[in-house]
Amino acid sequence: MDPVQSTVEMNPLGWGDAASATPLPDTARGLIEMVFGLDERPPVEHPELPASGLDPVLLDGLRELLGPDHVRTDDETRRLRTRGKSTPDLLRARAGDLSDAPDAVVRPAGHDDVAAVLAFAVEHHLAVVPFGGGTSVTGGLAARREGYAGLLSLDLIRMKRLLAVDPVSMTATLEPGLRGPEAEALLAEHGLTLGHYPQSFEYASIGGFAATRSSGQSSAGYGRFDALVVGLTVATPRGDLTLGSAPANAAGPDLRQLVLGSEGAFGVITSVTVRVRRLPAVKVYEGWRWPSFVVGAAAMRTLAQSGLLPTVIRLSDESETAINLARPDEIGGAPAGGCMMITGYEGEQAAVDAKRAAVTAVLSGLGGESLGEEPGRSWAHGRFNAPYLRDALLDVGVLVETLETATFWSNMDRLYADVKSALEATLGEPTMVLCHISHVYETGCSLYFTVAAKGAADPLAQWLVAKAAANDAIIGAGATITHHHAVGTDHKPWLAREIGPIGVSILRAVKADLDPTCILNPGVLIP
Amino acid sequence: MDPVQSTVEMNPLGWGDAASATPLPDTARGLIEMVFGLDERPPVEHPELPASGLDPVLLDGLRELLGPDHVRTDDETRRLRTRGKSTPDLLRARAGDLSDAPDAVVRPAGHDDVAAVLAFAVEHHLAVVPFGGGTSVTGGLAARREGYAGLLSLDLIRMKRLLAVDPVSMTATLEPGLRGPEAEALLAEHGLTLGHYPQSFEYASIGGFAATRSSGQSSAGYGRFDALVVGLTVATPRGDLTLGSAPANAAGPDLRQLVLGSEGAFGVITSVTVRVRRLPAVKVYEGWRWPSFVVGAAAMRTLAQSGLLPTVIRLSDESETAINLARPDEIGGAPAGGCMMITGYEGEQAAVDAKRAAVTAVLSGLGGESLGEEPGRSWAHGRFNAPYLRDALLDVGVLVETLETATFWSNMDRLYADVKSALEATLGEPTMVLCHISHVYETGCSLYFTVAAKGAADPLAQWLVAKAAANDAIIGAGATITHHHAVGTDHKPWLAREIGPIGVSILRAVKADLDPTCILNPGVLIP
Repeated sequence: MDPVQSTVEMNPLGWGDAASATPLPDTARGLIEMVFGLDERPPVEHPELPASGLDPVLLDGLRELLGPDHVRTDDETRRLRTRGKSTPDLLRARAGDLSDAPDAVVRPAGHDDVAAVLAFAVEHHLAVVPFGGGTSVTGGLAARREGYAGLLSLDLIRMKRLLAVDPVSMTATLEPGLRGPEAEALLAEHGLTLGHYPQSFEYASIGGFAATRSSGQSSAGYGRFDALVVGLTVATPRGDLTLGSAPANAAGPDLRQLVLGSEGAFGVITSVTVRVRRLPAVKVYEGWRWPSFVVGAAAMRTLAQSGLLPTVIRLSDESETAINLARPDEIGGAPAGGCMMITGYEGEQAAVDAKRAAVTAVLSGLGGESLGEEPGRSWAHGRFNAPYLRDALLDVGVLVETLETATFWSNMDRLYADVKSALEATLGEPTMVLCHISHVYETGCSLYFTVAAKGAADPLAQWLVAKAAANDAIIGAGATITHHHAVGTDHKPWLAREIGPIGVSILRAVKADLDPTCILNPGVLIP
Repeated sequence: MDPVQSTVEMNPLGWGDAASATPLPDTARGLIEMVFGLDERPPVEHPELPASGLDPVLLDGLRELLGPDHVRTDDETRRLRTRGKSTPDLLRARAGDLSDAPDAVVRPAGHDDVAAVLAFAVEHHLAVVPFGGGTSVTGGLAARREGYAGLLSLDLIRMKRLLAVDPVSMTATLEPGLRGPEAEALLAEHGLTLGHYPQSFEYASIGGFAATRSSGQSSAGYGRFDALVVGLTVATPRGDLTLGSAPANAAGPDLRQLVLGSEGAFGVITSVTVRVRRLPAVKVYEGWRWPSFVVGAAAMRTLAQSGLLPTVIRLSDESETAINLARPDEIGGAPAGGCMMITGYEGEQAAVDAKRAAVTAVLSGLGGESLGEEPGRSWAHGRFNAPYLRDALLDVGVLVETLETATFWSNMDRLYADVKSALEATLGEPTMVLCHISHVYETGCSLYFTVAAKGAADPLAQWLVAKAAANDAIIGAGATITHHHAVGTDHKPWLAREIGPIGVSILRAVKADLDPTCILNPGVLIP
C-alpha cells in the first residue's frame, strides 16, 4: 500500500482523525457548564496560510532530488505540517495563526534522500524540521525561520518500512515514519510487538519516539522507548552515524543516548533497531482502589523496589479519580472516593497468572481494594481518547492542557504539592488540577498533571503564565522538566536550569559539530 | 579511619595484595609444564623510576592547594600509580620499564580540591590522570605526556565517603575513591548493597566503575553499573556538571550516559548517585552442565528473553570447562565434558525460591543437568582470584591475558569462531583459548576470552599482534570492541572503526568543549 495514501492525516485544528472527533456527551456538558460555564469558542474559519517564500529555483532543485510529487507547497499539505498538538499550538491554529507553516513539505523515500536533502539545505541555508507523527506537545515543530532561505518540513511519511527482523536476537529495524499502529501491524506479521503505547500511539511515529525519549503506558513491562533502542542510523549534515554494535558495551560514552532525545537537532534518525517481544497471548487490566494517593503511591514503590511490576501500572490522585468516575452510568451512585489504580498484565498465560498473583498479594496486603477487570477494560478502551476531549472542551471555552515531570520517590510529595499550587495560583478559580503517576521506577516515578480552567479572554497568555509557574516549581523542587514530552521550544529555559551551563555547553558543542550551519530544527532543544 | 592509611596498595608488578600472591599449585605446575614448558622469568629487580620532572614552583603551588602531605613525588608512591593491570602493563613493569610514572601524585580531599587541581593544571598545562583503583586493563592510566609541563596522577584515595543515603528512593551517593568492598561496607551499615561485583571488585573504585561502564558478575540481577547510576557530579576544566534530576526523563539527550564511559577524558567524577538494593538474605549459587556451548547459550537466551534471569549467570565453553575442572580433586576422575554454567540467586528467601524454581524448570527442560551447589560455591569462593594466577603464569613464561566483546545473539557463533581463530593463528602453538559468556541481555551477550600461550622472546610484541588480530576480528564481525573493559589507549583505533568518523567527531567536540587545553587523560579514549 502506498504509505502516503494510507496515512490518515490529523485534524489540523485538533487531535486525531476529524471523523473521530466527538462532541461533549450531554452529561459531561452539564458538569462543565456547572463548573466553568459554557463559552462557545469555535475556531476561526478559513484562516489564511502565509505564502510559501521559497525561491522557485530551490524548489526545482528539491524536485530534482526527490521527484516533483514529493516536494509540496500547496496550502493543505503545508497546513497539515504546521506545529504540533500542544494546547498553545491548537489555540494559535484555532485563532487562525498559521505563521509557523513551512515553505515546503519534502518527502524523502529513504536514508539517502534524507542525506541529499540535508546537503541541499546546508548549501542553500534552508531550515529543516523533521516531521514524523506531528504529535509534539512542546513546540518541537515550531523551528526558528529568521535568517534562513526558507523552512522545509522533512516529512517522513514515505519511510515506513520494516527493514529487518532478527527473531533470534529479538530485534527489529524500523523506518522512522512508521506510526505506532503501522509498526505494530508489521511486527505482528512476525508474531512480535514493540509494546510501546504512549497516549499519542495512533499518530506518533517511530522516529519521534526515539527523538523525544517517549514513554508508553506499558513501559513498566516493556520499558521506555530509549530502553528499547539497541541501534540507530542517523543522517547528519556532516555525514552518517550508525550506532549499535551490541546490546550494551563499555566502548566509551553511549552515543545512542545522545541521539535519543535529540529532537531532530543533531540529525535525522533514518532507522531504529529496537528490542521486540513476542505478541502477548493474554492482556488483562484491572482496577484497584486506594484510600489515598500517598498510600497508593507507596504501594507502587513497594512493587517497583521488589522487582514485581505489572506491564501497566498507573494511579490517579483523588481529583482525577473523582472526575474519571463521573461518567454517566456512575453519576447518581455513591461517590467512590479514594484513588483509582490500573494494573495490567501482558504475556503468556502462565507468566501473567504468576505475576498477577504475586502483585495481587502485595497490593492486598498493603490495603488495596480490588475492583476487578471492569475499570481495567474501561481504561484500555479509552486509553488513546483523552486528546479528543480536549478539542471539545476548547470549543466551549475551557482551557485544558497536560504537563508531566518525574522525580525520586522521596521528593514526590513535595513535587506534587508545589506543581499543583503553582497551577492553581496562576490559573485562578475555577481550576481543576488532576494528577496521576504514569510511570514508576525503582528509584522514583513520573507525575502527569491534567489542568482544566475557565479560559480567559486570552487563553494562550493565561496558559503560558501558568505553565511557567509550574515549570519553575518543577525545577525548584529539583525534578525534571519533562519525563516523556521532550523539550521542544517550550521547555528550553528550564532545561538550561536543569542541566546547568556545562550541560548546555555540551549540547551546543555537539550541535555545532554535527550541524555547523544550524539548519536542523533551529531553536528547538538547544538552549 | 584514615582512608589513605586503610588502603591496601596493589603489588606494582602484578595483581592485588602482594601478601595474597599464590605460587602455582604443584598439580597446575605439572599441567603447565606439560603444555607450555616452564621458562622461569622473574621480574627485573629494583627497576629505576624516571625522576619527577615537575618544576618545584609548581609543586609548591600544588602543596598550597592540597597541603604538603597530599602532593607526593617519592618513588614508591609514583611507582604505585604507574599504569594499570593489563598483561602489557605488567610485562612492561616486570621488564623494568616504568617510563609512564607520573611526576607527582596529588590527593584531593573532595570535589572542591579536584576543581582546584584542574584549574591549576589548566593554568600550567599539566596532564592529569584520574586514579581510582588502578585496575585498568586497557591502558587507561597511560596518558600522553609529551608537550605538558608534567603529568599528575590525581589520586582519589581520600575521597571515600558515603555522602548520602535515601532509603525511600533506594539511592546512595558515593565518592569516587571508594573501592568495591569499602562501598559495600558503608552501604551494609544501612542494610543496603550495590550488588556490583566485577572480577576487579576488591580493588576497583566507584569512580572507575562509572568512568568505564563496568559490568559485574551479578549484573543479570543488579544491572550493569551504567544502569545503576541515577546521578553524577563531575568537575571539568570548564566548571561543574551535576546531572540526575529523575530516574529517567525526556529532557534532551541523557548526558549521564555521556559521562559514563568517559574514562576521565571529559572530567573527574566526584560523586555518583546509584540505585541500591536491600542486602540479600540469601545467596545461593549452583552449577549446570550442558552438552555444548551452543546448547547452553541457547538456554541463556531463552531465560533472558523470558524475563527469567537469575542474579548470576555465566557459561564456560568446552575448553574453559575442561581447564576449570582440572583441579587436583578432579584429576584422575572421569573427564566431565560438556560446558559448565553457573547460576546464582540473591534476595529474600521466598523470591529466591520462586525464581530458582522457575529457572530450574526451564533449564531442565532444555537439557541442562543440575550439578548442585558445590560448583557454585567453588566459583563464588574463587571469583576474584584469577588475576593472581596470571602473575604466577607470567613467572614461568606463559603469556596470559583476557579480552571481551559483546554482540547480538544471532551473531554470537560467528564472533566466537572469528576471535578464537584470530588468537590461535597469531599466537602459535601451544595456545589455549578459553571463553565464557559473562553477561546476557534479551538481545545478546558478551563473550569473555582467556588466552594462554607459550611466551615468545618478546611476549609484549607477541601479545600486541594477537590482540590486534582479535580486535580486527571483533570489528569485522560487527561486534563491540569492549563490553566492560573500556577503551583506554589500547582500543582507540578500533573504537574509531566501531563508531565511525561522525562518532569520533562527537567525542572530540565534547572533549574540546569540556577540556579545551586537553589536560585530562590526554591520549585516552578519544581517537
